[in-house]
Amino acid sequence: MNGAQALIRTLVDAGVDVCFANPGTSEMHFVAALDDVPEMRAVLTLFEGVATGAADGYARMAGRPAATLLHLGPGLANGLANLHNARRGRTPLVNVVGDHSRSHKRLDAPLESDIDALAGTVSGWVRRSLTPADVAADAADAVAAAASTRSTATLILPADVSWEDGAAVAAPRPVRRPPRVGMGEVEEIAAVLTSGEPAVLFLGGDAVSEDGLLMAAKIAAATGVRLMTETFPARTTRGAGLPDVARLPYPPELAIASLAGTKHLVLVGAQAPVHFFGYPGVPGHPVPEDCTVHVLSTPDESSVFALRALAAVSGPEAVPAVLERERPELPSGPLTARTMNAVIGALLPEGAIVVDEALTSGVGLHELTSGAPRHDWLSLTGGAIGDGLPMALGAAIACPDRPVIGIQADGSAMYTISALWSYAREQCDITTIICDNGSYAILEHELSRVGAAGDGERAAKLLDLGGPSLDFVALATGMGVPATRATTAEELADQLRAALAEPGPHLIDAVLRG
Amino acid sequence: MNGAQALIRTLVDAGVDVCFANPGTSEMHFVAALDDVPEMRAVLTLFEGVATGAADGYARMAGRPAATLLHLGPGLANGLANLHNARRGRTPLVNVVGDHSRSHKRLDAPLESDIDALAGTVSGWVRRSLTPADVAADAADAVAAAASTRSTATLILPADVSWEDGAAVAAPRPVRRPPRVGMGEVEEIAAVLTSGEPAVLFLGGDAVSEDGLLMAAKIAAATGVRLMTETFPARTTRGAGLPDVARLPYPPELAIASLAGTKHLVLVGAQAPVHFFGYPGVPGHPVPEDCTVHVLSTPDESSVFALRALAAVSGPEAVPAVLERERPELPSGPLTARTMNAVIGALLPEGAIVVDEALTSGVGLHELTSGAPRHDWLSLTGGAIGDGLPMALGAAIACPDRPVIGIQADGSAMYTISALWSYAREQCDITTIICDNGSYAILEHELSRVGAAGDGERAAKLLDLGGPSLDFVALATGMGVPATRATTAEELADQLRAALAEPGPHLIDAVLRG
Repeated sequence: MNGAQALIRTLVDAGVDVCFANPGTSEMHFVAALDDVPEMRAVLTLFEGVATGAADGYARMAGRPAATLLHLGPGLANGLANLHNARRGRTPLVNVVGDHSRSHKRLDAPLESDIDALAGTVSGWVRRSLTPADVAADAADAVAAAASTRSTATLILPADVSWEDGAAVAAPRPVRRPPRVGMGEVEEIAAVLTSGEPAVLFLGGDAVSEDGLLMAAKIAAATGVRLMTETFPARTTRGAGLPDVARLPYPPELAIASLAGTKHLVLVGAQAPVHFFGYPGVPGHPVPEDCTVHVLSTPDESSVFALRALAAVSGPEAVPAVLERERPELPSGPLTARTMNAVIGALLPEGAIVVDEALTSGVGLHELTSGAPRHDWLSLTGGAIGDGLPMALGAAIACPDRPVIGIQADGSAMYTISALWSYAREQCDITTIICDNGSYAILEHELSRVGAAGDGERAAKLLDLGGPSLDFVALATGMGVPATRATTAEELADQLRAALAEPGPHLIDAVLRG
Repeated sequence: MNGAQALIRTLVDAGVDVCFANPGTSEMHFVAALDDVPEMRAVLTLFEGVATGAADGYARMAGRPAATLLHLGPGLANGLANLHNARRGRTPLVNVVGDHSRSHKRLDAPLESDIDALAGTVSGWVRRSLTPADVAADAADAVAAAASTRSTATLILPADVSWEDGAAVAAPRPVRRPPRVGMGEVEEIAAVLTSGEPAVLFLGGDAVSEDGLLMAAKIAAATGVRLMTETFPARTTRGAGLPDVARLPYPPELAIASLAGTKHLVLVGAQAPVHFFGYPGVPGHPVPEDCTVHVLSTPDESSVFALRALAAVSGPEAVPAVLERERPELPSGPLTARTMNAVIGALLPEGAIVVDEALTSGVGLHELTSGAPRHDWLSLTGGAIGDGLPMALGAAIACPDRPVIGIQADGSAMYTISALWSYAREQCDITTIICDNGSYAILEHELSRVGAAGDGERAAKLLDLGGPSLDFVALATGMGVPATRATTAEELADQLRAALAEPGPHLIDAVLRG
């Protein structure tokens, strides 16, 4: 058995049976070994950023890591931006990076580069397999590390470690369970919540799962504490029957306003909030100066356990307030961000997975979908745009029986547009709605927010995607995805209904005015 | 004057007046300052890999660096693969990476990452500007470092260093000239060449410029030494009136055969050759065991000077053998890689810039164009695919009066396909020929070359781009580039003639059989 065969078999035995791949020469034995381990599903992507983003989306929905297969330093480099998002979202991921054979490594061949340095910037665990005899054990360690620390475990795989014989399959390693907080901490927090001072439970990680949210709502009913989630949770469950929990707003002035007057900010699976960017004359975070920050549970700990314990102490009989099933009316007339989002709210199907990279076009989207049937929501955790289309691919591979709806800003879509080709190849049930406003609208907002004196023509031109305008219908059909264009709310509704009624991928270019 | 204004003015004063940009929030003051320094031309790209590849192509043709403008660690990450190619091609490049404001840096905001570690893997020089008072001097140092060491100089630019006042323009710094070899070394090499033992001058860097090649041919005429170039020179001048110099072949077995019997390999601006990859049972480089490697000039030194000195010693009166003007006949019938390349050879216009990322479809391309009118040829120096489309953009911006012809493999085209949008936006005179064979053909070759037992169906499927097939005409028109499809040699000739006769970008999808 060669190293590649042992590696793939070990991954499958440890529960990693999907690999998002963009291989090159140094990974050819891994590719060849796929025929020996049919339980491993290999999904081809045309760009490494699609592979890593798909692995991110997969693990968020499957709850266990996928593998990637990348080609040397440049292949890893192309995948780094979405590994950054995975890192910020605490996604477990097994990142396999092929390298030159051991004897070739020292020759400084053209593709030689510092893979370890690149991997270190996004990984919680990095190892280079040095012999075929070790590669399976290394792979088993990688899976355990990824799952235990909820991070990317990068396994660097020299080509000859793949192709040489002398390898044997390794057994799965135990995965560390998230630690549980002690009752002392829980009682301290309970005292804070019943102090009568304004307090917020700031929720992230598994606190925004169905169980976590229901427990948090119970605590809110018992104590009056306000609930708020991180701005961009990796995955949250939403819809009727769950509490109505606001997100911390993205714009600094709104974030500051939303926490004004808060005396106690209690972190539950979240870190203390900071603004995405620094701005002239604005503090770096929205927490009031006289507010005390408490930790119920860190992102490493089980927040569901912590919330359950807190609910038991604060008011075990409390009844959580939850949302009724309620949808917006189907709007009519011109298509704007708001009417687009109302159409989505009106038609969002039961069990949908929403992948949200709408950016500025997401205005009202959360409110308009909060009473929809139960669904999951994946956000852009690390701010590196171009994760939306790939994440939808991964989510669809993880949950083939659920409809995936990608709500995708136009500028960001172009970073990883070739994800559409993989949608068509795998016939994923993904409906992509392009928020087509013809500009880097978020940067137009940011240009004014930073106080830049940039009302000049040359600055404005650099934020305009209109010359030439991107034809997303042509781009999608060019990659095998059926596509239509909507210019009114009625057209969008008709096209969304049709897309949801049919299996396979569809793209709707939603041309937004104003 | 704020930091951004001083920075841009300093770059312009030092001769860096083109910036390939993909900005984000932290670069908004740089964007705003573009209106204050109209001499700086900003070229918007939709993906950072396009920006860095364009800067690579620009400097190869302009002979001086362009700047980039990238957004934080993830933006730099997306640009790394083409910075890797730039590093391998010794391209001077000023890589400006925006970062969080200094006060925000410590807050571990979502986009925070280790920019310095990423930059270190591709840069010859890295500096973080720490105050507005220093940023202009830092920029001047960056330009000098990039030009002196022919490498990427990365300047990390905190947002508040851009937006704060108190900056002043800095004067350009002197650029180090390439060192010259001593006459002692030249005479030693002359003695080797007249020893009567088989010798090869192995040419790279500026040795493959027009001057270098003509000097090398003079030396060959005087001494009988064979001439050979690196497999993928960054830029070489070719065509009638220049010597016929073979490239070292890419496949290891052909590279080994081409150097068999050589007793002296004399490096001129090139490093000793190694194979791109290691293969089971194949040595890592093609240099025979009993061959002595000599250095006439390193890539850091002036190879034109060294060759001129060597010619003066070996035979100042020798007359170089040069190619007559000769083109292949226009072929007819089915379109194959060979007939495609014959059409290109028959029609290549005077002064063309060829950007070659044809990979496997490049078979015969060199031979069929060697007697064409004088032209420049840019190769994929670092093996990181996805540099071709961006390099063509940069070359066209550097040389607006010359036709640019991109010969582009289909799989690699998808890495940075959004370059086409920038072609249309800038109305560059670029004709892109997609070598559309519907597969990762190079990997099919490599799968058999590495001896992988991968004739299985699942392995083969992972190298097949045919399901669904990519419609490059739709993709190009979707980004504003007029496009046609050629399925016969006659159609390709007609379409290429038409594209060359009209200004602006065109794409031809050359559908290859067999």
